[in-house]
Amino acid sequence: MRQVAVIGIGQTKVDEHWDKSLRDLAGDAALAALADSGLQQVDAVYVGNMMSGSANRQQHLGAYIADWIGMRGAETFRAEAACSSGAASFRTAVMAVASGAVESALAVGVEKMTDSPIGEITAQLATAADAEWEAGQGLSFVSLNALLMRRYMHEHGWQKEHFAPFSVNAHANAMHNPFARFHERIDVEKYMKASMVNDPINLMDASPIGDGAAAAIVIPLDQASRVNGHSPVLVAASCAATDSIAVHHRKDPLFLQAAYASGKKAYDQSGLTPADINVFELHDAFSIMAALSLEANGFAERGQGPRLALDGEIQLTGRIPIATRGGLKARGHPVGATGMYQIVEVVQQLRGEAAGTQLENVRVGMSQNIGGSGSNIITHIFKQVK
Amino acid sequence: MRQVAVIGIGQTKVDEHWDKSLRDLAGDAALAALADSGLQQVDAVYVGNMMSGSANRQQHLGAYIADWIGMRGAETFRAEAACSSGAASFRTAVMAVASGAVESALAVGVEKMTDSPIGEITAQLATAADAEWEAGQGLSFVSLNALLMRRYMHEHGWQKEHFAPFSVNAHANAMHNPFARFHERIDVEKYMKASMVNDPINLMDASPIGDGAAAAIVIPLDQASRVNGHSPVLVAASCAATDSIAVHHRKDPLFLQAAYASGKKAYDQSGLTPADINVFELHDAFSIMAALSLEANGFAERGQGPRLALDGEIQLTGRIPIATRGGLKARGHPVGATGMYQIVEVVQQLRGEAAGTQLENVRVGMSQNIGGSGSNIITHIFKQVK
Repeated sequence: MRQVAVIGIGQTKVDEHWDKSLRDLAGDAALAALADSGLQQVDAVYVGNMMSGSANRQQHLGAYIADWIGMRGAETFRAEAACSSGAASFRTAVMAVASGAVESALAVGVEKMTDSPIGEITAQLATAADAEWEAGQGLSFVSLNALLMRRYMHEHGWQKEHFAPFSVNAHANAMHNPFARFHERIDVEKYMKASMVNDPINLMDASPIGDGAAAAIVIPLDQASRVNGHSPVLVAASCAATDSIAVHHRKDPLFLQAAYASGKKAYDQSGLTPADINVFELHDAFSIMAALSLEANGFAERGQGPRLALDGEIQLTGRIPIATRGGLKARGHPVGATGMYQIVEVVQQLRGEAAGTQLENVRVGMSQNIGGSGSNIITHIFKQVK
Repeated sequence: MRQVAVIGIGQTKVDEHWDKSLRDLAGDAALAALADSGLQQVDAVYVGNMMSGSANRQQHLGAYIADWIGMRGAETFRAEAACSSGAASFRTAVMAVASGAVESALAVGVEKMTDSPIGEITAQLATAADAEWEAGQGLSFVSLNALLMRRYMHEHGWQKEHFAPFSVNAHANAMHNPFARFHERIDVEKYMKASMVNDPINLMDASPIGDGAAAAIVIPLDQASRVNGHSPVLVAASCAATDSIAVHHRKDPLFLQAAYASGKKAYDQSGLTPADINVFELHDAFSIMAALSLEANGFAERGQGPRLALDGEIQLTGRIPIATRGGLKARGHPVGATGMYQIVEVVQQLRGEAAGTQLENVRVGMSQNIGGSGSNIITHIFKQVK
């Protein structure tokens, strides 16, 4: 399996883009990544997207976007794995280049959610859950996570305010990210006073939807060289695993088995351990998911995710900085694009391009994208090339 | 790039399956393929599907189906490229195994279309075209193909009846395929008298929608051996290419540029030529697509596809047998599953399992799956292993 490197990244602001179509957003991110990579052309274009067939009445985004960005002729298709669609498109690009099937590939995650009635978006988000056993019974994504959070609080003795640091940290970091949806510092008081969405999840526990696109370009490592002032970044691991799609089918719903499994595979593939990870862009769609992700990936003991956050260890100066560009909570969560935002943000850190939230001595970064309530989890580890 | 072989296939009948869910259909095909392969477990499950998010209110089919068939833990996602989603899932499986990312992969194409109002299905099919420049102007898939067929007849001097052999051949072959939707022989008179759908396309030019699933399992060739009475089949080429998504953006709308490009890549990759192909499962969603596919892939001169059909060369006894199990026209076209049906049918021919339509001396077969009106085309070549 030949090694693969990222040589270009691009993104748009996460926002309500009333003046941009789905195609504009994907094109803006993809063309930015191309310019950044120095390439004029790629062999393949893989698109991560969840709901354009419903929200935008446009499927077939592979051909749609390849055509738009001048890559007519390239191999294309869309990868969909609900909220982990972005990382699935990147994983496809990595496998395509690693296999030798293509010599260069662009992965672009895109979602355009704010043009549609919110009821339709909520219903489409619920299509990531089990149609018969969950969504069909009236469960939405927020309610599934609310059940998990309430149970977690009960099992481990946490109070609502103990989850505040996840949101406070994400919003603080987003202040320095021009691509983030929110630029608004919050504190514990604001967190506690936010409107309740689905008890115990309030507005400050839940990531916002949005429109956005993020992209990256990969080629074989041995063909990658310094370009436009930045070095290539090695894809040290690319791994995926699933759990049951319905939460109630899990023996232990408070342990993200697929995060553990894909994380363990990624550690094994890269020869690294949690202690080697300098930055972790995790999937904080809800505060509870941030806590569970830290635990499943070896950064906190079971039930101790909030402790890590309360101790400041998730901040830029802590042991395992998360959401360094705002995370899903404050950068925003355009679902099919999110996995690509996470990857772009890790690459920014490894290149030293994270400006106001740049970490020091960062050599290795990890991104983890979750589809459904932990049912599909894709983990990537990136490493600086010496 | 390590070589990859097919060791298991499975399929359901294409039909109106009122008693089966999307999950049942995919599971039936996938479990049949597993049983056929002799494997108990696979590392990855890739699902080809176009419209379940709308037609079945269920996305995230990777986790959904992996869970259902007992492959919880496997890597999964869905590949979508409109009507070429099936072949896209197979290509993903090939790249995953070829890259060394996984040691075994299941590709399953599935579509469940007959539960939804037909208006919704027609609208969803149109999401494979350009939302702004085609579907948004009122064009459906039938009308796009009707424009192509009318122009083709004008350019090359063909009459309506000259397209009859495509449909007659497909229906004749489907008589022997228990998995085909239609078991009804037709003749030129019946073809000519069929109800008009969109002039000049009548019911006998257009493939029917349906519910169905088909699956295949791939592993590295060097690990494949004879199992359950059949030999492995080599994936000699796996190639994809795109054209513009909107038909009017093409310099020559009557030439399937992406079929030519992916076909040429496949010939080069396998070291074969059109003369070596013993069976060609092409994408006869409409008669005109069968004619254009034969021309773009080197089996007929420009404008001479109907001549090949009229001369009987597309029949089982002809130079290049097509639709040997009924094709899209008579086996049926459950859109996201179709590409996998084509692959399963080529493997049946190479294994000598095609019963009443078994070809003699068949060593090499080709399948070609088209997404949109020729905008994404994926070509596979399969070869017997000596």
